[in-house]
Amino acid sequence: MAKGDVQLLGSWASPYSNRVQMALNLKSIDFEFVEENYYNNKSERLLKANPVHKKIPVLIHDGKPVCESLVIIHYIDDVWNTNGPNILPSDPYDRAVARFWAAYIDDTWFPLFKELFKGGDETRATVLAKISEGVTLLEEAFAKCGKGKDFFGGDNIGYIDVVLGSYLGWVKVTQTVYSVKLLDETKAHGLAAWAERFISHEAAKDVVPDVQKLVQFFMMVRAATASSSD
Amino acid sequence: MAKGDVQLLGSWASPYSNRVQMALNLKSIDFEFVEENYYNNKSERLLKANPVHKKIPVLIHDGKPVCESLVIIHYIDDVWNTNGPNILPSDPYDRAVARFWAAYIDDTWFPLFKELFKGGDETRATVLAKISEGVTLLEEAFAKCGKGKDFFGGDNIGYIDVVLGSYLGWVKVTQTVYSVKLLDETKAHGLAAWAERFISHEAAKDVVPDVQKLVQFFMMVRAATASSSD
Repeated sequence: MAKGDVQLLGSWASPYSNRVQMALNLKSIDFEFVEENYYNNKSERLLKANPVHKKIPVLIHDGKPVCESLVIIHYIDDVWNTNGPNILPSDPYDRAVARFWAAYIDDTWFPLFKELFKGGDETRATVLAKISEGVTLLEEAFAKCGKGKDFFGGDNIGYIDVVLGSYLGWVKVTQTVYSVKLLDETKAHGLAAWAERFISHEAAKDVVPDVQKLVQFFMMVRAATASSSD
Repeated sequence: MAKGDVQLLGSWASPYSNRVQMALNLKSIDFEFVEENYYNNKSERLLKANPVHKKIPVLIHDGKPVCESLVIIHYIDDVWNTNGPNILPSDPYDRAVARFWAAYIDDTWFPLFKELFKGGDETRATVLAKISEGVTLLEEAFAKCGKGKDFFGGDNIGYIDVVLGSYLGWVKVTQTVYSVKLLDETKAHGLAAWAERFISHEAAKDVVPDVQKLVQFFMMVRAATASSSD
């Protein structure tokens, strides 16, 4: 059940926007999705709603903006606390563990993909090896947090699920563009099966972008970046 | 009142450790502080408690480790929720605003100081100008969040207070080493007065490091870094 007027300024290709869409879906909240141009031509509304970072996603609830994807997910869980299962675990220690892995995924693991896309100082093989080490850690985290159930959150999609799950489209783009296998059934059996379950879930299936469309978008952005730095 | 057995693996010079010490003090929690070597000779206990990042601070509560300073502060607020005022605001929107500014301070503003210390690509004047722009934003945030009261948290020290306040020692080091004034009474009147109140507060006064000791530590680390990169 919706409570108040909800808009989301986001983009179909942004994992940070996608995870908020998923969180809103999990809580069955009616919202208007406002597609913003990911890289330029930012709307006046976005610039006014997020003057500090000028970035999507921004949730606008009853006219008040909330910025930064993880902050927004906490806000959704706090405000719509009676709509379905909690996104954050209810036990304080489990909640700390979930926040720890979300921070690891956002601040340590996914930045490796950005490093790969940029073609920075480190060789492709070095970065891919670090991504694989991360997959091993996340496989262990899945076993511990999920306790043999379907999701990191147990029977339901929870905080780590939406944070990691929002990157699945970009993981697949990386697998396609660089001809590598990252979520390997042999090395990360649990995580590979989790990924399949996650993208088929009601809250995620219409949100995780189509891989071919995302590859095209990636190629376009890469070409634009290359020509602008000539 | 303490609840269970609490140790903190930390360092006197680390703002991330300091903010956890302050949060524990705010909640009147008895704890054992275990000084870890900030840069090397990490203890077996630390490596075992935080195998992913191998970094302080780590809170060990009844034998269970909690890592990452912001995660630890949330955990303290969750577990000791009846000890004194909440660190996070109780209203969901105010809580989102507090999390937003904490993320801004940690991910955008303080990294500028690290850039300055490293002597990276940008000129010193450019980085100092960006730090000043941040001070202006934080002055506005203080006016909005504090609503004319003593702290960002209102009458009591709250989440933004401990996050920003934990950097005050390093702000003063920067002022000393680079002969600049960052918390300027004319440009950031509210914030300058807040800083004085904060470092005199019962929960912070024995935690914020002595500036001369911190300057010596900074010089030592800078010399060690310079000689190791020769």
